[in-house]
Amino acid sequence: MAMARSIALKAVSTGLWSLNQSRSLSLPKPQTVRALSTTMSPPSKAVVYEHHGPPDSVTRMVELSPVEVKENQVCVKMLAAPINPSDINRIEGVYPVRPQVPAVGGYEGVGEVYSVGSAVKGLSPGDLVIPSPPSSGTWQTYVVKDHDTWHKISKDSPIEYAATITVNPLTALRMLEDFTTLRAGDSIVQNGATSIVGQCVIQLARYRGIHSINIIRDRARSDEVKEKLKALGADEVFTESQLEVKNVKSLLSNIPEPALGLNCVGGNAASLVLKFLSQEGTMVTYGGMSKKPITVPTSPFIFKDLSLRGFWLQKWLGADKAKECRDMVDYLLRLAQEGKLKYEMELVPFDNFHSALDKALGKHGSQPKQVIKF
Amino acid sequence: MAMARSIALKAVSTGLWSLNQSRSLSLPKPQTVRALSTTMSPPSKAVVYEHHGPPDSVTRMVELSPVEVKENQVCVKMLAAPINPSDINRIEGVYPVRPQVPAVGGYEGVGEVYSVGSAVKGLSPGDLVIPSPPSSGTWQTYVVKDHDTWHKISKDSPIEYAATITVNPLTALRMLEDFTTLRAGDSIVQNGATSIVGQCVIQLARYRGIHSINIIRDRARSDEVKEKLKALGADEVFTESQLEVKNVKSLLSNIPEPALGLNCVGGNAASLVLKFLSQEGTMVTYGGMSKKPITVPTSPFIFKDLSLRGFWLQKWLGADKAKECRDMVDYLLRLAQEGKLKYEMELVPFDNFHSALDKALGKHGSQPKQVIKF
Repeated sequence: MAMARSIALKAVSTGLWSLNQSRSLSLPKPQTVRALSTTMSPPSKAVVYEHHGPPDSVTRMVELSPVEVKENQVCVKMLAAPINPSDINRIEGVYPVRPQVPAVGGYEGVGEVYSVGSAVKGLSPGDLVIPSPPSSGTWQTYVVKDHDTWHKISKDSPIEYAATITVNPLTALRMLEDFTTLRAGDSIVQNGATSIVGQCVIQLARYRGIHSINIIRDRARSDEVKEKLKALGADEVFTESQLEVKNVKSLLSNIPEPALGLNCVGGNAASLVLKFLSQEGTMVTYGGMSKKPITVPTSPFIFKDLSLRGFWLQKWLGADKAKECRDMVDYLLRLAQEGKLKYEMELVPFDNFHSALDKALGKHGSQPKQVIKF
Repeated sequence: MAMARSIALKAVSTGLWSLNQSRSLSLPKPQTVRALSTTMSPPSKAVVYEHHGPPDSVTRMVELSPVEVKENQVCVKMLAAPINPSDINRIEGVYPVRPQVPAVGGYEGVGEVYSVGSAVKGLSPGDLVIPSPPSSGTWQTYVVKDHDTWHKISKDSPIEYAATITVNPLTALRMLEDFTTLRAGDSIVQNGATSIVGQCVIQLARYRGIHSINIIRDRARSDEVKEKLKALGADEVFTESQLEVKNVKSLLSNIPEPALGLNCVGGNAASLVLKFLSQEGTMVTYGGMSKKPITVPTSPFIFKDLSLRGFWLQKWLGADKAKECRDMVDYLLRLAQEGKLKYEMELVPFDNFHSALDKALGKHGSQPKQVIKF
């Protein structure tokens, strides 16, 4: 994966930052002369962090100096980029793979080609592109990366979906594909059903004729939430307390037992997913929102032959999946464009980044996905 | 799988029991006449239970009437049969697959062919045989079952190993084969290492050049236990309390991180197995001796890509594995005969069944495997 411009930040007296692109120390060669004649990017306004810590205190909006756009590189004027939970974890330093500090935040997004290096083919100014597979440093107004980082998408793509199509919807799609063979009429069970991945699971399953059994936490107005998920295509929606019954499967009407369960919560919500699973079922864990561990008695492993697995999109993408990633992103964007895949987002001007970050950090309760608009 | 003689027990005034073989109610056919001329088994002394409950109170030693040995059946004089934990669970009624009551106890064992039905080929009186795959009702002096239940084994097989070769050693063998590809020089980690399966794992691994990391519970004289397991071929043996360190892997010297872990304990001992596992490792659960659940934080599923699976020999055998089962039993018996596979057993005369049962139930602390000698 091509890295973002390698940055060495230093505070300057103006309170702004300058960026010195790190260069190789080898002696000038003929190409270097040509490189010097290439275009420069505009200066870029970016959200950066110098060290790991609480995102609301370690991130700062800075101005980065123009950088050279080398012959194989493309400069993209960013249009939109989301604040995902994994972005927050990278800044906190608790994510296993993260850019070296100092770094620009963000990992996915969408932009318009601003200028291309002299050797770049297939991309021209004005093209709509996303970094695909995603790539660090999308929270800035101009991003310069190698041309093969960028995937050209249809100009009709809705911007906010283009900005967010990989991290959440692709996770949902892969989890439905990679662990069991699902056929129309089959079912799946998931907790955390109101998350964006959860909403995508409901819609992608429904699109394939697969029933979804959905578990949500107890909350005020849970009936409204249930109706909303049913409107997306959910077959069954239960609060955790509704499932405090001897046999959860007795609550299912005309839906086969699910062979696939998806868990992004842990604790009791994970145990409930396990209770729904059929013989030889698989539960895939992709998050742990409750911060509680997964607890399983011995007997379902032995006598029900359950499997517990994990899914991490970044690992999947690392396994040479660039082509597949792009094909699936195109598929998902078509669905979004046709209104078959939707989820709530709030577009926030870049200058209001820190109030969007506060919402993403949960300081104001449940909020739609925050998407920065540059 | 051929069933044991179907029994309808009724108490008789003598205190003994009689057995009426259940017959079909169809009108007599010519074959029936021939069947009547077949041999009868001797009367059989058996450990039976009429209803589920505590094995020491619901089992009784009774005498069963002779039964017909039909043309495709073989009557075997039993020589030895173990009391396995799963036999106890079947009597308690907590095992998911169990014979209908009233039933004769036992599931594996070894015997000598006593008589064969008129159509039986390939088996003759005097042959040493085991029910393979195992089959219910081995706790009796004479067992009549269809000829294809019986697997003829080498007459040189040590009787106590022939009696016990399937339930424990085959579980060990399959778990080493079925979940990961292990090569010489690789390693595995297990808890419950002093169990018979655990001891078999150590020896079968060593025989293939695979290192074993073994976890035992804290106990008096743990050094003696460690030496004993090392004499069997264990590379490393740790008590649970020795593993209360920040990084358990730092305790390994010259052994690669294991990709396979085996868990028959649960609770903390299962968590310790997980801590040793390599990236993308698999933990297989085949028992839950501590009666505590398995608890896993979210992150190893996602970022270490661990898998949790289960193994149940009876399910494996149910998948049309009779031929493979017999091949592996022969392999394991050869190892036992050559002294490469060994574990402690106590042979107990059948008349002392209930004292052996008390030992198997743990009433007298840790004891060797109890094997009934008829």
